[in-house]
Amino acid sequence: MDFKTRFAQILETVNKWTDELSPKGDGLHKIIFEASNYSIQAGGKRIRPIIAYGVCEMLDGDEESVKNYACAVEFIHTYSLIHDDLPCMDDDDLRRGLPTNHKKFGEAIALLAGDSLLTYAFECASASNNPPKTTVKAINAISKAAGINGMIGGQVIDIEGAKTYDELKTVHKMKTGALIRLSAYLGAIAAGCDDANLKHIDEFADNLGIAFQIKDDILDVESTVAELGKPTGSDDKRGLTTYVTLFGIDGAKEKLEHHTKLAKDALSVFGKKAEFLLELSDMLLSRKN
Amino acid sequence: MDFKTRFAQILETVNKWTDELSPKGDGLHKIIFEASNYSIQAGGKRIRPIIAYGVCEMLDGDEESVKNYACAVEFIHTYSLIHDDLPCMDDDDLRRGLPTNHKKFGEAIALLAGDSLLTYAFECASASNNPPKTTVKAINAISKAAGINGMIGGQVIDIEGAKTYDELKTVHKMKTGALIRLSAYLGAIAAGCDDANLKHIDEFADNLGIAFQIKDDILDVESTVAELGKPTGSDDKRGLTTYVTLFGIDGAKEKLEHHTKLAKDALSVFGKKAEFLLELSDMLLSRKN
Repeated sequence: MDFKTRFAQILETVNKWTDELSPKGDGLHKIIFEASNYSIQAGGKRIRPIIAYGVCEMLDGDEESVKNYACAVEFIHTYSLIHDDLPCMDDDDLRRGLPTNHKKFGEAIALLAGDSLLTYAFECASASNNPPKTTVKAINAISKAAGINGMIGGQVIDIEGAKTYDELKTVHKMKTGALIRLSAYLGAIAAGCDDANLKHIDEFADNLGIAFQIKDDILDVESTVAELGKPTGSDDKRGLTTYVTLFGIDGAKEKLEHHTKLAKDALSVFGKKAEFLLELSDMLLSRKN
Repeated sequence: MDFKTRFAQILETVNKWTDELSPKGDGLHKIIFEASNYSIQAGGKRIRPIIAYGVCEMLDGDEESVKNYACAVEFIHTYSLIHDDLPCMDDDDLRRGLPTNHKKFGEAIALLAGDSLLTYAFECASASNNPPKTTVKAINAISKAAGINGMIGGQVIDIEGAKTYDELKTVHKMKTGALIRLSAYLGAIAAGCDDANLKHIDEFADNLGIAFQIKDDILDVESTVAELGKPTGSDDKRGLTTYVTLFGIDGAKEKLEHHTKLAKDALSVFGKKAEFLLELSDMLLSRKN
């Protein structure tokens, strides 16, 4: 099966999962279900659950074993976008070509929709049918990657703005990298991966996360509003340090290819089984949004 | 040992736990540790971890078994106060006699401090030494009680404001009641409680939670700013439906005593062992803040 077909299949599976596991309910508070699902359904790329799926499959894990963990990461990613877009943060009106959550539902509901998706991610992970020991490990990893020394910590540094290359690397490692590495880790432990292979997978995900962020920096300069679904050139407007401001477009592209290669090299021990993740890495390198 | 001495001991233990388990760290994002700990240390009553402790002790559970769960609930309670105080929610400047988190650290950091405490609560619970099966149950219960059909759902209804008695009961059950019941539940499962006793404990906590909220409504009318550490009369100013507006001060006090009695009655099966929780119920009934 060619990569495009396989990618479409996995995306369909992952979308079916997020539909099935997303928070559902009614009652006097039904608006919060609406607001939460609005952002879940807003056309995200599902990169994180797809990575979790891909790693689990590469290790011959059962797809059901990664389902709840993969959705938990997607719900956390979604909450982080809702809170990032709030007026007291980036104050963005547009996300994936649609009004941001607070533009649609008001600030209070958007705040609470974010809170509920974050909380719900742990409900979702804790409802996994995996052995409780694995689920406790998964939840500990999710809370660390999404938390104060992971995604949130990166967000805090990003408010001030990274100035040096070292600070930029720290922000990326925490803000974007942590959830990408988490996704790969969850796919691995769901499949019962041993420590030696875990190391290769983390090497892969670490470099993929860096490449992913460099590509974001490049897209902010090179993409159009229609392709990106949000304003372009916003990094420049804010005077942010990015891979492009530090190394120029060509330098950033070189680094992108370098880290994509490192990511792929880390999977060499898995031979043919790594095929999907290798092609996924190339796809992320050449994506338009 | 008299109740006051025992209460002081347990409070000291619980404060030691929250100090020990609160998020600590440094780095470029150190402000977020400061902001998180500012609110944890802002003189909360620690009612929720004390209830968890009391229930665990009543059932002869080891105090270490409830430690991480009890702190998780306190961290979630703290995050909920930070987010509730934000300008887009209640827009409060004062909490427990101190500037609210966003008044001290700005809105963006307050938002992220709330997010990080919520996330950290799950890190804390997942680091418990209890059997993984118990911890998965605990985390599932925490996420449900704090989540979209629990505390957050109650908060959503509260934005619109309850109008009828039924709606008021729904808001209280979800917004305040859910975490109080959760605290008792966590104390119980940490001690390995069976289903029959769990039913009595839930009956206790359910009524205690209602009594707690009625008392809050009464204090908003009868207390002074100095006693309460925040503005009084705020319910009335917002035109909220409360136990006092529905039943008058005397009617609310009758209901407070009624639910306190139901809470205490539910513990009769535990005989002498329930002594601390019985006196705690009376203390909450007569509290001044």
